[in-house]
Order: sequence, then C-alpha cells, then structure tokens
Amino acid sequence: MQAAVQIRPDAIHTDAVIVGAGPVGLFQVFELGLLEIKVHIIDSLAYPGGQCIELYPDKPIYDIPAVPVCTGKELTDNLLKQIEPFGATFHLGQEVTVVQKLDEGGFIVETSKDTQFVTKTVFIAGGVGSFQPRTLKVEGVEPYEGTQVHYRVKAPNQFAGKNLLIIGGGDSALDWALNFCAGHKDGNPHKAESVILVHRRDGFRAAPASVAKMHELCDAHEMQFIVGQTVGITEADGQLTGLKIAGNDGITRVVPCDQVLAFFGLSPKLGPIAEWGLALERKQVVVDTEKFETSVPGIFAVGDVNTYPGKKKLILSGFHETALAAFGAAPYVFPDKRVHLQYTTTSPKLHKVLGVESPVFD
Amino acid sequence: MQAAVQIRPDAIHTDAVIVGAGPVGLFQVFELGLLEIKVHIIDSLAYPGGQCIELYPDKPIYDIPAVPVCTGKELTDNLLKQIEPFGATFHLGQEVTVVQKLDEGGFIVETSKDTQFVTKTVFIAGGVGSFQPRTLKVEGVEPYEGTQVHYRVKAPNQFAGKNLLIIGGGDSALDWALNFCAGHKDGNPHKAESVILVHRRDGFRAAPASVAKMHELCDAHEMQFIVGQTVGITEADGQLTGLKIAGNDGITRVVPCDQVLAFFGLSPKLGPIAEWGLALERKQVVVDTEKFETSVPGIFAVGDVNTYPGKKKLILSGFHETALAAFGAAPYVFPDKRVHLQYTTTSPKLHKVLGVESPVFD
Repeated sequence: MQAAVQIRPDAIHTDAVIVGAGPVGLFQVFELGLLEIKVHIIDSLAYPGGQCIELYPDKPIYDIPAVPVCTGKELTDNLLKQIEPFGATFHLGQEVTVVQKLDEGGFIVETSKDTQFVTKTVFIAGGVGSFQPRTLKVEGVEPYEGTQVHYRVKAPNQFAGKNLLIIGGGDSALDWALNFCAGHKDGNPHKAESVILVHRRDGFRAAPASVAKMHELCDAHEMQFIVGQTVGITEADGQLTGLKIAGNDGITRVVPCDQVLAFFGLSPKLGPIAEWGLALERKQVVVDTEKFETSVPGIFAVGDVNTYPGKKKLILSGFHETALAAFGAAPYVFPDKRVHLQYTTTSPKLHKVLGVESPVFD
Repeated sequence: MQAAVQIRPDAIHTDAVIVGAGPVGLFQVFELGLLEIKVHIIDSLAYPGGQCIELYPDKPIYDIPAVPVCTGKELTDNLLKQIEPFGATFHLGQEVTVVQKLDEGGFIVETSKDTQFVTKTVFIAGGVGSFQPRTLKVEGVEPYEGTQVHYRVKAPNQFAGKNLLIIGGGDSALDWALNFCAGHKDGNPHKAESVILVHRRDGFRAAPASVAKMHELCDAHEMQFIVGQTVGITEADGQLTGLKIAGNDGITRVVPCDQVLAFFGLSPKLGPIAEWGLALERKQVVVDTEKFETSVPGIFAVGDVNTYPGKKKLILSGFHETALAAFGAAPYVFPDKRVHLQYTTTSPKLHKVLGVESPVFD
C-alpha cells in the first residue's frame, strides 16, 4: 500500500487520464472526444504509437478494417490526424507512479516526471506494458549495469576518450557507433578512444546508409566490427575489463573495453499497473464487456492490457472497447446528463466537435 | 414453422454463409478468410455496401478508426479490396428465404433466386434489415400497388403512351422523368403521353445536371413540375384516375393520371430473419459477447442486427464482433483442429493466405 498523496496546487484537473499512447490509447482520445470528455494522455515512450512504432514502424499490417495495408507508422499518423480536433495533451517519456482513489470520487494520478492529475476517470491502454530496454543476459553483468554497462545513452560525454564495445544491429547501435567514432576533424566533443561494434550476424536492421558508413570506417581502421555473441565478462579489481565474444568460427575471444553499450531493443513489462489494486488474471486486467470497466469503478482498461471471455489481442478489438468504455465513463463525467449515441455522418453536434461542416441531408 | 426442405443435387456446399454484404458482412469475409474458412455472401441489394452505399455513399464518415474521413462508397471499396485475396462468392439481389438446421449438423440456406447452400455455419450481418422501397402513405392506395402505383420500374415499356405522375426528388425520380419524357426524335421506345413530376419542395437531392434538364423540359412544355404533397387518390370504376396534391399555396388539386411512379428511397426491414427461431430482443438478435453466437449454435450475428449488454450500433463494433465470431465458428468448421490467433504483421501462414510476401524480421 503506497502512502497517501495529497492534491497539490499545481495539479492538472481533467475528466480523463489515458495511460498509454499506443493505437488503442489514441483512439480512446477520439471516442472520449466525441462525448466532449477532456483528456490527458501519458506514455512511457518519448513518442506516441506504442508497439506499432516501437516494434513494427515499417512493417505492414493487413487487418485494420477498411485499411487493406498500412505500416505501424502510418497507422499511428492516421490516428494522430483523426484525434487532432480534440486537442488532447500528451505527457510523454514518463510512467504513472501513483493512482489513488479520492473519497469525493475520482483519482489522483502522478507520473515519474512529477506531473499530478486530479481526474474523474482513468483509462488503462497500457498494451503489453511499458517498454524497457532488453538487457545483456550474461553471468556477472548486473553489478556493472549503470556504471560500465549501459542500455541507453544519457550523457554522451561520459564515453569520450574511452574504449567502447557497442552491441547490436539496429539504428541505435549503428548511430552511436558512428557518433563515438567520428574523427576529431568533425569537432566531435565526445569522440571515443576506440569503438568496436559487435553483432551476432553480418546483417543489420539499421538504415543501409549507416551500415555502409560503418564498413567505410572499418576499412579505414577507424573502428572494428566483430560478428559474434557475448557469452561472458572479464573483471579485475572490481572493474569490468572486457567481454568474452564467441565468434562464428567457434572460437571465443576476450575483447577488452572500458565501457559497454548494448542496444537490443525494448521489451514490454506490465510494470506498476500490477500494483494499482485491480483484479488481474494472468497479468491482464479483468474487465466486463459492457463498459470495459475494471474491478475499480471509474478505471477502465482497453486493448491488449485487458482480458474477458473471448478476448483476442487485436487492435480492432481495442478500438471497439474504447467506444464502449467512453460511454461507460460518461456518467462519471456528466452525472446529470444522459449521453446518447450519435453518428458522425449525420449529427450536427458531432460535426461541431470534429470541426467539420455539416452536409445537407434531403 | 416452414416445411422441411431437402438437400438438392445442385446445392452449394460451403463452410460459412454470410447474410448481408454491408461493411460488417464484408469484414466478416476477411476474418473468416484469415482462418481459411470458405465463404458465400448473400445480400438483398444488387451491390455490396449495405447502408453505406444505400444511405450515404457520398457522405463523410469520421469514426472508422485510423481513417480520419471517408465516404460510404470509399469505405465499401476499401473493404472489397481488403477481402479480394479470399475470393468469396457474392449472391446479390436475393433474400434468404430458408434457414433450416440439419440433423447431421450445419444448415440448409435458400434464397429468393432459388440458390441452395449446405453450410456448416451462418453469419447474420443483416444490419438494420433488408431494404424495401418506401411506399406512398395515402388512404386507398394499396389495391393499386403493382398495377397503377409502382415503387420501382421493372418493364419500362408498360408506361409507353401513358399519362405519368412521378413523385420524388432523388436521382430515381428525375432519371425516370427525363427518360419517359425524352422526345420521339431520340428514338425513345417507351415515351409517355405526358409526364408530371411531383416533389414536396423546389430543391432536389438528384444530380444538378438532371435538375437543370428537367427545368429545360418544363420551359419547353414537354413536362410539368408541381411542388406539393400527395394527400389522396381519385378512383372511378375500380381504376385509379388521379392523385390529390396539396400545393404550397394551401390549395389541393386533383391531378389526373394513368400510372403513378413513387421514388421515396429504400427503408430497412428486419424481414424473414425474425422467423428463423432465434432469440430476439426488440427486433434484435441476442448474442453472447464471447463468440457473438445466437441462441442457435452455429448461427452467429454481427453488426447492427445483434444486441448484448452495452451494444452500440457502430461499424467499428461490428468489425470487432466479426473477429470473435470467426474464432467462435472455427470449431464447427475444423472440429479436430485448435485455431490460434496469429498476427498479419508477423505470421508467414497469414501472409500466404493474404497473398503477400513475408517481410524479413531481424
């Protein structure tokens, strides 16, 4: 049980907080917007789109209804365009740390960037969870994480003048390798002493131009590229001194280094949602199928994060869930008003909300 | 209770029959197709699209997820493109007349064009019902419907040489008025003796070019246009002799005629679905929210035709329902196979079904 927090003078007062800015969280903005429910949306990633952007920005999706094919990026862009009329406020790059019920109704929500909301309703659109960097899975590495082994670059200058091992085959690995390797003549303020790129195969997910540049630098002996997998570490006097790399030739070599940067992508974790006191089933939030409300009245859960009989983790199911959840939330936001379904094609009220002209019907 | 029908030698054997080719029926083809379930689809209209095409082909829809705006026609076209890989067979312009359970499992389905299916499952995607022409609502008109009062033109030559009253302001009314009025010099095989167009106001839903042409013909005294509403009929010797038209000036006049053609658009009726022995609630088919199955195992209902707690008549809800109904149907079609959810972005099996290349994942 977390210690009770108090409402602060700088709290943001709102009708709804959406946790998760993936496709389903974004469409939740739309469905709430149609009902004129004001929204703030939070995501642990630095940009909207969730899994679609994190895992398959350029891969085709075929099962969005009436969209024969689109990439994760296109899907996200279209949803962002669709919710533009509603002016939702995004709070990105932060996780929700507190969700606390208020006696007078509603909730206090706080994030890791110390933003505080007082909201009538909460919508969990957390997908498969918040994305955390995948870590290097070799024995003895944990004590060095944060000092000599890193999964993201927070202060590039701490690597200046160091012997670096950079692991991975995606854009992050290649971009940082090129960055730390760039010559003095480029005026690079944090050029490393040496850069060795390690990847398990001679094929890259990174942009072809970056890969070509890397090969050029290798040819010029300004950096090295090794095909191999990390199987262990070497240490001396409480310091990590190198990694053991098993090469394609079956031989394991020790590669000395000062610092390790490993970029294996992000993997999702349900994270703090598990501690909000909601009924869970196999790490999924249990909801009804009428309002997609959780065991805590006023908290709804939509998309991959929820479970109910028949649940399939499909984006199109999440879209449906947001519509019914929005209607489920309306009585908390407008206790004295009956909210009816109207159609975007025919309702002058919805046209006003959407900022479009009403067509003339005969 | 309808008399039992027998399986005919020319029956079409299939996994699934979908009743209704509106947007939800079309997407049902997609969801069944992903599971490799073979489909025939029936609609009472002569073309796919249902309400979207019948009621708002050119009106914007704003709440299809990830499609900021599209018309009913665009929505239909995109869905038709999306289901192309599955080669579903369309049976249009016919209504289902028989749905009969077979002792050995499955159903016999028959249509008004005498097509017979033997199918393992049935999907009702009937929307608000099948579309029937709106009729002229004045006293005493019923006995003349089909002989002197018509809501569609089946044989144009029956109107040649007659004095016609054509009622309505849409394309059907204008097109037929122009057609029956076209001069002998145009070689018109079914020119009427006279044409009077009646519409309740001096403004038209029909194409502006047709309206302009109509005004031209009126100016040339080749036809007449009267603003007014039909309030009664006149008869003599068991024949309809004219309509009573209440004009804008408050005066009701008798306008003589031989034949009346009234085009008021189509309106939906649940129709024969009401007699299939399914549990209904306020003329909606009751389904569960796990499989969207009706009270008759093997018959599913999706889209506007169904009801369940929380139901909203939204196209996006229908899309979700088709996905879960497809998984609900799989055990009837593949009793010995467990069917698992796969993703169109990553599954090589689904890529094969969709006829697209599998991307390479790193």
